Amino acid sequence: MATSVLPDTPSAASLYSASSNPEQLARVVAPLRAADVAALVNELSPAQAARVIANLPFDVAVDVLDEPELDRRHAIVQRLDHGVASALVGAMAPDRRADLLRELPPARRKAVLAGIDEPDRAVLQSLLAYPEGSVGSIMTTEFVSVAANTTVAHAVERVRQLAPDVTAVYAIYVLDPTTGALERSVHLQDLLLADRDAPIMSVGDPRKPLSTSPTTSQEDAARLISKYNLVALPIVDDTGKMLGAATVDDVIDAMVREATEDVQRFGGVEALDAPYLRISFGAMVQKRAGWLAALFLGEMLTATAMGYFQVEISKAVVLALFIPLIISSGGNSGSQATSLIIRALALRELTLRDWWRVAVRELPTGLALGSVLGVIGIIRIVTWQHLGWYDYGPHHNLVALTIGVSLVGVVTFGSMAGSMLPFLLRRLGFDPASASAPFVATLVDVTGLIIYFSVAYAILRGTLL
Amino acid sequence: MATSVLPDTPSAASLYSASSNPEQLARVVAPLRAADVAALVNELSPAQAARVIANLPFDVAVDVLDEPELDRRHAIVQRLDHGVASALVGAMAPDRRADLLRELPPARRKAVLAGIDEPDRAVLQSLLAYPEGSVGSIMTTEFVSVAANTTVAHAVERVRQLAPDVTAVYAIYVLDPTTGALERSVHLQDLLLADRDAPIMSVGDPRKPLSTSPTTSQEDAARLISKYNLVALPIVDDTGKMLGAATVDDVIDAMVREATEDVQRFGGVEALDAPYLRISFGAMVQKRAGWLAALFLGEMLTATAMGYFQVEISKAVVLALFIPLIISSGGNSGSQATSLIIRALALRELTLRDWWRVAVRELPTGLALGSVLGVIGIIRIVTWQHLGWYDYGPHHNLVALTIGVSLVGVVTFGSMAGSMLPFLLRRLGFDPASASAPFVATLVDVTGLIIYFSVAYAILRGTLL
Repeated sequence: MATSVLPDTPSAASLYSASSNPEQLARVVAPLRAADVAALVNELSPAQAARVIANLPFDVAVDVLDEPELDRRHAIVQRLDHGVASALVGAMAPDRRADLLRELPPARRKAVLAGIDEPDRAVLQSLLAYPEGSVGSIMTTEFVSVAANTTVAHAVERVRQLAPDVTAVYAIYVLDPTTGALERSVHLQDLLLADRDAPIMSVGDPRKPLSTSPTTSQEDAARLISKYNLVALPIVDDTGKMLGAATVDDVIDAMVREATEDVQRFGGVEALDAPYLRISFGAMVQKRAGWLAALFLGEMLTATAMGYFQVEISKAVVLALFIPLIISSGGNSGSQATSLIIRALALRELTLRDWWRVAVRELPTGLALGSVLGVIGIIRIVTWQHLGWYDYGPHHNLVALTIGVSLVGVVTFGSMAGSMLPFLLRRLGFDPASASAPFVATLVDVTGLIIYFSVAYAILRGTLL
Repeated sequence: MATSVLPDTPSAASLYSASSNPEQLARVVAPLRAADVAALVNELSPAQAARVIANLPFDVAVDVLDEPELDRRHAIVQRLDHGVASALVGAMAPDRRADLLRELPPARRKAVLAGIDEPDRAVLQSLLAYPEGSVGSIMTTEFVSVAANTTVAHAVERVRQLAPDVTAVYAIYVLDPTTGALERSVHLQDLLLADRDAPIMSVGDPRKPLSTSPTTSQEDAARLISKYNLVALPIVDDTGKMLGAATVDDVIDAMVREATEDVQRFGGVEALDAPYLRISFGAMVQKRAGWLAALFLGEMLTATAMGYFQVEISKAVVLALFIPLIISSGGNSGSQATSLIIRALALRELTLRDWWRVAVRELPTGLALGSVLGVIGIIRIVTWQHLGWYDYGPHHNLVALTIGVSLVGVVTFGSMAGSMLPFLLRRLGFDPASASAPFVATLVDVTGLIIYFSVAYAILRGTLL
């Protein structure tokens, strides 16, 4: 699909034949959109990629290095001729340049920073100071601003001056001439239609523009941009002075990355931070082994719990048959509840204070779901017994009752534990999204066994046990 | 956080005192941003909401009805006075008006459509015809277009004419005057800086603009917008004629909805399509009971499998102790693999053809992870035995070996099954995101038991078995 909308993409064949020669490949890809060039360059080794980029026209090379899609930016820049590298990096957007510096080891980063002239260095240092995941770390510091006491004509002139540096202007920002505080955001459409002699403060939405602080999380910034249908969100400091703007494309990238992390963590993996096929075997095993081993250690408690019930199992082996069925049902209902609550917390539909309202909903929900499974379980045992497909022994009706009651208990417990775990994690200062499906399943497995054998003991004492 | 950026939001106290009186509430909220009014209106009953909206200034009321955040749009409109409702709906954006009609039962929808004049009716009918989830169903049909043989001045004039209807103009589209085919997309910034007498075809990016067909999925449109840093994506028909544009705010909404569905489905729940606290008890149970019961039926195979091994269990009850530990480890490794593959498929990092490359990676990964868990398991049994914390019987070393080997087998199988299931589902025409963690766990549980007891039989035959 995606390629059908790109009528000017050269054929794969022409690229393959050109790929042996970086100069020729550079000529073939130069007319493409920067995102497409970046995607092609990602397929090459860093050394090849550097040679292709060195052979692109300067502006195209800068655009490609500015592309969020470009992988291994640092490895590529390192392999460029020193003079070429300095010139290209000097022309990159400040936020992307900061990304590049973040990839460097701290000692090298310091050395590179020392070689950059003011005021660029100050800008880079401030961008690097914002924590990872904050909107400050992805904001652009190149925006068009004018003083509040100027005219529309002056604002248009500013757009003209800055047009080569600021890739896409959607709004201009009107600042207090003395404090630098953000007073107005004027949409380009309003600027286009306004009388050129009009004072800039007479144009556009008279309300104080929405803004946020640089320490706001990228997801919260995304939420504001989405809720208020913005294309850029101004970032201001405590005094209201404008520092930069988060643009919608950076925010979309942050959202996609966040969604990936959420799904991976819910699956019980540390976030990969790289495409599946590109991560090394060692890194892949490492990202998975940690959680898997932690869950395994937690799950060992089931062996301990089972140890306590060994006498019961040897007396009534029939009970062992249903262990996987019972505990997995608890894990499944817990996984359902967790996924609902994690997402509702992420969307701010729920806050920490709502835990009680959720508990009051999950209790009857769990009882209802448990009853559904309990009835199915009882029907299964009774049917198999009557049709002679399996012999559950002389007390088969009591066994069926044990399974039914246990399922109600285990599923209810699973729903409650699965829904409360994200709240508990948030309360303890962890990300609620760490409550993965395997985590909940492990939590519920041990308790599920205890519920099962307690119910069995109550119902089967004097008969099987 | 979100409230701190809204200096002009009235205090909660003033809203509460005003909420008993819709007229007064309307006065208080009228100066707010439409998204905030919609959020407040969502807290009211449809009848109250209708009275507040009826008392808002007309333009504000239209903006609120146009807000994607507004819930129960149809219920509110139904409770408005007929004349007011017609006027408001007539002024709504076509895409949102189509949303409203989608909420109606088919018979009523037909009647309402019949009452709408051409050309509005044709537009609505075409929007309603695009399948749910397609970008056509969320595109806006109000965009600024000019013929390719006009000047910049004419284009500016068109922006001026359409400004009241088109909420936010970021680009104007240049169309072939005879065929209506999309020729150029001119950014507003370029229009602002261009000489007014210049031909429109001389302004901006000379490349044919990116575009896509109305049947493209919303996620694919989001991917294009994100990759190429667009604020709007033109939608064209087979002949290249421009039909509308997907704007970035609609696409962000679609992405957030999609992420919610993915997390919920991965947790084994049907997508709720509503906030957690707002869905009815019956609907909640229904959305969860279906998958839970299906998984339960699948998991019943474990009871069948265990039935075959009942003799082994009664001979060596010690084997039963480790059943939950073994099968959950397979489920956990499967859940990890599935989350990685689902996400990589969603991001188009992997396609169906890559299944073989993934299998070749997951086999050694599974063996490595299984070995880690196997070693931990063996150490645990040997340690407990030597410290006298538990007695695994005279053949405890063989039992430890059985657990270790089984873990390698089960975790490897879990990784393979978990990574292949999403490919299999896509191959069969299902959404790979239906491969939920509980689904994978269920799949792996049955096989895990068979692996475990087969290994036990091989190692313990002649001693315990």
